[in-house]
Amino acid sequence: MGRWEPDAQGRLARAAMELYIERGFDSTSVAEIAKRAGLTERTFFRHFADKREVLFGGSAGLQDLMVEAVRGAPKSAAPMAAVAAGLLATGPLFQDRREYARQRHAVIAANAELRERELIKLASLASALADALRGRGVNDPAASLSAEAGIAVFRVAFDRWIDISNKRDLTQLIRESLDELKAVTAAG
Amino acid sequence: MGRWEPDAQGRLARAAMELYIERGFDSTSVAEIAKRAGLTERTFFRHFADKREVLFGGSAGLQDLMVEAVRGAPKSAAPMAAVAAGLLATGPLFQDRREYARQRHAVIAANAELRERELIKLASLASALADALRGRGVNDPAASLSAEAGIAVFRVAFDRWIDISNKRDLTQLIRESLDELKAVTAAG
Repeated sequence: MGRWEPDAQGRLARAAMELYIERGFDSTSVAEIAKRAGLTERTFFRHFADKREVLFGGSAGLQDLMVEAVRGAPKSAAPMAAVAAGLLATGPLFQDRREYARQRHAVIAANAELRERELIKLASLASALADALRGRGVNDPAASLSAEAGIAVFRVAFDRWIDISNKRDLTQLIRESLDELKAVTAAG
Repeated sequence: MGRWEPDAQGRLARAAMELYIERGFDSTSVAEIAKRAGLTERTFFRHFADKREVLFGGSAGLQDLMVEAVRGAPKSAAPMAAVAAGLLATGPLFQDRREYARQRHAVIAANAELRERELIKLASLASALADALRGRGVNDPAASLSAEAGIAVFRVAFDRWIDISNKRDLTQLIRESLDELKAVTAAG
């Protein structure tokens, strides 16, 4: 109790993911996650508000990272270039986490409530990016369109990144998807 | 009972919207909606599965309309041009329904569960558009990017259309938002 557990959060997250995949998210209890990790429920609740937060606890950090990069883009950067900076800033966060991202994706895809939660997360990301663009003096509809288009690029790049046959890194796929968006809109 | 009621569905929908705005969605019962419309609960359930369907009953029709127009676009049309045809096909559906759309938007904005439902609706629209593009021989990521970008355009155009100060029609705003997306991606 209160004792320091080496990497308790990481052990709990890995145990949770194993169980979500083996039994499904709904059929897994916090008690089982703690047991699998060799820790107590009390320790679980020191790190996560509930078992859903194991999957979504990183959302705020992801959003801050993107927003900071949009804010920090050169003053001269066009709206979509600032958004691109925001998306590309996430590359290092996901470095070496492809297997985890793939498992998380499988757990979420199997559960309607989690799919909704993921949609809400992406909608708040888009909304935060649009606000950051407005903070740079970008007007609407350019701000909301650039932000929404940016999140579309991020989703598509992320899905390609976690695809089993993919060998490229996320940063590269974000760049390619940005180019592809430019190509399809120019040709439309 | 079973008696034909002139425009029962329209009367129920208008009564429901009035009550959702007056009392909030959660605090309105089907019994109250039926009473306000001068009809029975039984008649309500002949037209709507539940009180949420009053707000989302049109989703399937909207999706079919977009998908048909994407499928029916000239063979030579680029992916984004086919998506544009899909978006523009919705114009007549919303003709003369701006006040209704504005009220519906206010009801949904005030309720977390309804906002989630709306996000799910838009995600299925994007997914249906991407499938329609694949049916035209468009590969990924162009198919998913064009579909997601198209839905972003639709959302932005729709929000501008229902804005109280707006005087332009939905079709015109969709065209403008498509042009704006082209401009921001080209400059990015």
